[in-house]
Amino acid sequence: MPLSPEQEAEITEQRNAPQQTLRAVSDGMEAHLYTAYPVLDHGFIRVVDYMGDDAAICQAARVSYGKGTKSVQNDEGLIRYLMRHWHSTPFEMCEIKLHVKLPIFVARQWIRHRTANVNEYSARYSILDREFYVPAPEHLAAQSETNNQGRGAVLEGAEAARVLDMLRADADRAYDHYEAMLSPEEGRGLAREIARMNLPANVYTQWYWKADLHNLMHFLRLRADPHAQYEIRAYAEAMCAIVADWVPLSWQAFSDYRLGGAALSAAGLDCVRRMIAGETVTQESSGMSAGEWREFQAVLGQE
Amino acid sequence: MPLSPEQEAEITEQRNAPQQTLRAVSDGMEAHLYTAYPVLDHGFIRVVDYMGDDAAICQAARVSYGKGTKSVQNDEGLIRYLMRHWHSTPFEMCEIKLHVKLPIFVARQWIRHRTANVNEYSARYSILDREFYVPAPEHLAAQSETNNQGRGAVLEGAEAARVLDMLRADADRAYDHYEAMLSPEEGRGLAREIARMNLPANVYTQWYWKADLHNLMHFLRLRADPHAQYEIRAYAEAMCAIVADWVPLSWQAFSDYRLGGAALSAAGLDCVRRMIAGETVTQESSGMSAGEWREFQAVLGQE
Amino acid sequence: MPLSPEQEAEITEQRNAPQQTLRAVSDGMEAHLYTAYPVLDHGFIRVVDYMGDDAAICQAARVSYGKGTKSVQNDEGLIRYLMRHWHSTPFEMCEIKLHVKLPIFVARQWIRHRTANVNEYSARYSILDREFYVPAPEHLAAQSETNNQGRGAVLEGAEAARVLDMLRADADRAYDHYEAMLSPEEGRGLAREIARMNLPANVYTQWYWKADLHNLMHFLRLRADPHAQYEIRAYAEAMCAIVADWVPLSWQAFSDYRLGGAALSAAGLDCVRRMIAGETVTQESSGMSAGEWREFQAVLGQE
Amino acid sequence: MPLSPEQEAEITEQRNAPQQTLRAVSDGMEAHLYTAYPVLDHGFIRVVDYMGDDAAICQAARVSYGKGTKSVQNDEGLIRYLMRHWHSTPFEMCEIKLHVKLPIFVARQWIRHRTANVNEYSARYSILDREFYVPAPEHLAAQSETNNQGRGAVLEGAEAARVLDMLRADADRAYDHYEAMLSPEEGRGLAREIARMNLPANVYTQWYWKADLHNLMHFLRLRADPHAQYEIRAYAEAMCAIVADWVPLSWQAFSDYRLGGAALSAAGLDCVRRMIAGETVTQESSGMSAGEWREFQAVLGQE
Repeated sequence: MPLSPEQEAEITEQRNAPQQTLRAVSDGMEAHLYTAYPVLDHGFIRVVDYMGDDAAICQAARVSYGKGTKSVQNDEGLIRYLMRHWHSTPFEMCEIKLHVKLPIFVARQWIRHRTANVNEYSARYSILDREFYVPAPEHLAAQSETNNQGRGAVLEGAEAARVLDMLRADADRAYDHYEAMLSPEEGRGLAREIARMNLPANVYTQWYWKADLHNLMHFLRLRADPHAQYEIRAYAEAMCAIVADWVPLSWQAFSDYRLGGAALSAAGLDCVRRMIAGETVTQESSGMSAGEWREFQAVLGQE
Repeated sequence: MPLSPEQEAEITEQRNAPQQTLRAVSDGMEAHLYTAYPVLDHGFIRVVDYMGDDAAICQAARVSYGKGTKSVQNDEGLIRYLMRHWHSTPFEMCEIKLHVKLPIFVARQWIRHRTANVNEYSARYSILDREFYVPAPEHLAAQSETNNQGRGAVLEGAEAARVLDMLRADADRAYDHYEAMLSPEEGRGLAREIARMNLPANVYTQWYWKADLHNLMHFLRLRADPHAQYEIRAYAEAMCAIVADWVPLSWQAFSDYRLGGAALSAAGLDCVRRMIAGETVTQESSGMSAGEWREFQAVLGQE
Repeated sequence: MPLSPEQEAEITEQRNAPQQTLRAVSDGMEAHLYTAYPVLDHGFIRVVDYMGDDAAICQAARVSYGKGTKSVQNDEGLIRYLMRHWHSTPFEMCEIKLHVKLPIFVARQWIRHRTANVNEYSARYSILDREFYVPAPEHLAAQSETNNQGRGAVLEGAEAARVLDMLRADADRAYDHYEAMLSPEEGRGLAREIARMNLPANVYTQWYWKADLHNLMHFLRLRADPHAQYEIRAYAEAMCAIVADWVPLSWQAFSDYRLGGAALSAAGLDCVRRMIAGETVTQESSGMSAGEWREFQAVLGQE
Repeated sequence: MPLSPEQEAEITEQRNAPQQTLRAVSDGMEAHLYTAYPVLDHGFIRVVDYMGDDAAICQAARVSYGKGTKSVQNDEGLIRYLMRHWHSTPFEMCEIKLHVKLPIFVARQWIRHRTANVNEYSARYSILDREFYVPAPEHLAAQSETNNQGRGAVLEGAEAARVLDMLRADADRAYDHYEAMLSPEEGRGLAREIARMNLPANVYTQWYWKADLHNLMHFLRLRADPHAQYEIRAYAEAMCAIVADWVPLSWQAFSDYRLGGAALSAAGLDCVRRMIAGETVTQESSGMSAGEWREFQAVLGQE
């Protein structure tokens, strides 16, 4: 369980103290506010604040004086138009702020998305908790033999046990020594900013992360993708569920035009036109490399 | 008066429809929401949305589970510490969204602040109104003789009248022709995206502009400065008054450490130390250029 | 002719003074350096500096100690892979710096691309030249009747003459008055920072603009697109020709996977699959709106 | 020694192959190109490419057609003026690309500077080397008793030996197990993207990092500061030496106005004025908190 009773109490207290505001309110999002949704074995994601809703996107796109909403249908059409034509600025008018607990190796992938605001728990100032990510059995996979940066079949039995033993023992020993360096039985403790470097990349950290909806969706497109590493994808998927409730019209448009869609190359587009015209196209006649053709076949559902 | 009765009604409607939220609420900011504060002769600035308050800055700096507020004193001390030590990320955790009506030449200065989100009224899509900025008498100044990019004494009498006549007549004629090109008495209208280029840089445009508090304060430091062009400074000053009510602790720290403070160079610091030790320092013995010395004297209030 | 003899001489001098460097050199780009390529009636675009070449992209992707080039074929395959899979960071390792002369209304579209560095000619500090964009006859178009932000048929004869007369006369008068306000026959001149606001949006300005290759290609994808306004597209097309010589492998990949490709929505992808399977799909059975279906037909070349 | 003979050979080969270019060349920087300067025990920093020099800053500030250099004196005056008045865009016109080898805990601090381009060695794709940062004896410090995020006195004797033993043994064991998980004596190897999470934060990684001069100087102001953690400061100081040779005029201005200068608060400025006027100011009469007063005394050299 990632939260202490005191932390749960703080969250409950915040959820029980509604206030009045004149701002745009998303009821779907209010229902999520502050709640910590578990991710991985010790991590979580929770919304700490948000700005805007679907109507706010239309309001900005129209540079309106009032709410900017004409009707739900009008708004839906406008949002779909904006998404289809790659208009990004109206979606930047919504903002989300998350509190995330995540392993350091996930944080290192995440932070590569630069257009966001971040405050991370400081291990120079404070002491990290004894919490490490250890994969669940179904996520303990062998190196893929075809994909240099992917996973193959799941390890089982002795193969899995051996790996889990190492991960657990090394994490525990590293943390024991981290504590021993910080607070030796006698003598002075090592500076925290040095001691932390003994901890492995599966130790958990925390941060506040804030991004606008356009950049959030870009993050989700890359990180909720099946090719993303499982551990960051788990966070992305938890975020998808929240966004769907926050801005349902935008989420639907995003699902239709980005997540569920596909990009065709010039060669791919040419092949599609020929195939629709009845031609049988092969890799040889496609003008594509083997890898490209394989990906093209997958797009067409012809794997 | 910049707003039509319909627009005023839309704003009034929004101000009369409070809703419940679990989010952080700034009472000082709620009082400003949606109201259009006049700037220049036809412009305005109004807050359309905001995220966070002083406590939210502390909450992020502490990566808290709950509100993150310990006490007002604690929070004030933390905010002052963060500001003094140039910690920027906690201040990025607050966000503001403005609707601004402003002349194009002001918009061109403003947009140079890149870390912000913008949706501008599209003159490709819509027709601009017949509204042009004409300086009030007290802002119609001669070119400065000492500052290549500044203003000197105010023009008066015939000198002023002559300039105002030109500005008004040219704006009117340009707009007459803009209309005539768009909607000729006979024949087809010119494309809006071409016709707009006949309008001068003092025509008013509008945009939604969203920024985080750190970048907003950076904007205010540069644009509320006495060396900024008067017309953009007028907007910056209207924003200052709003920020002071939104995040009063941060505003006070910003006033103390940025707006009211000064940067000393290595040479300036050396001079200050010598002067405190009783030495009489002159430009010659200061190691500064004439311009630098003049600015240094101004910092010390010895102009 | 946009350049004075003195300016031409400065450019020629720079082109005649090669120096030695250990850096990556792109011969295709060296041939373009400093030359001003005309755009519109008085504008130009010229490369002032660049960093990197195709090999530098591979070098960064491989985090190499040496050049990072294995062979041209290897590099080409890697670049195509990176482009196809939306890897953006290796392309950010190349940089270009341009000197551009452009009308203000084009500059206002251009500056919306925020991830770039810009130094614009200051009309607070200096006086702008008497140079205004006036469309060539073939670009003087009526408002489109179907596209709210586009152009329809070209205006001709009296319709065109009338518009051109207005554009030219208004620009001349505005500039006459700009000069008269700055340097009156008697009395003091108006501050430059005020006087400039009398000039219309088709007056030319200049700037230095610097961007990395990834962001440059994003700019080109949006601005070399047939839906972009003609005037900014003219600049984008001049840039395309330069990029093709600078980083030929990247340019080819960009052409294949971005410029010449297309994005299919989930519904579009479903239709394509059904059409390839032999089904006749109509708008009704497609699940698309009328507008979306029209765009989909265009992608398939079935307009 | 951080480089293998093959890597040294690749660097030597690049340093022996000058080519001709028409671009701005900085002789001071050419002398550094490609050379790996050691930092910490196994790290290094080396310049892989650069764009621009001092003259290029002036050229952009003047939006020049030619080199933009008037004379060295003129350029120096302009650069000092720009730096003093916080003009950032001309300094953005220079760019640097570095290849850096650094421990992961340093990389995590470094990456917080978001306005930069980064390609990191991928531990999903490749196997990390057995190289860990272990502090030299003089940098193995106790936790500071006054500064919550700083170092106190150096640990010595048995205290130091104990810590070093833990750091070395844990790193070795973690790497042994990393290898054993990747390539077990029998059975399948664990996916690299999982196995890497067993490695501690002092393992070395590598990246290509590219930034403009303005953002680089901002990085150096924060990270070459005595309050920065020693390990990242070691990299910043190596960079300072390189920048000083690359753009000597800018470096001098940066040293005078930023590194060697100080920011006074409104209260600090008031105190300075009173002290210069002969008044004896104490903390009580200063209006400052104890911490602020201590920092103010340090600025005045009166600690």
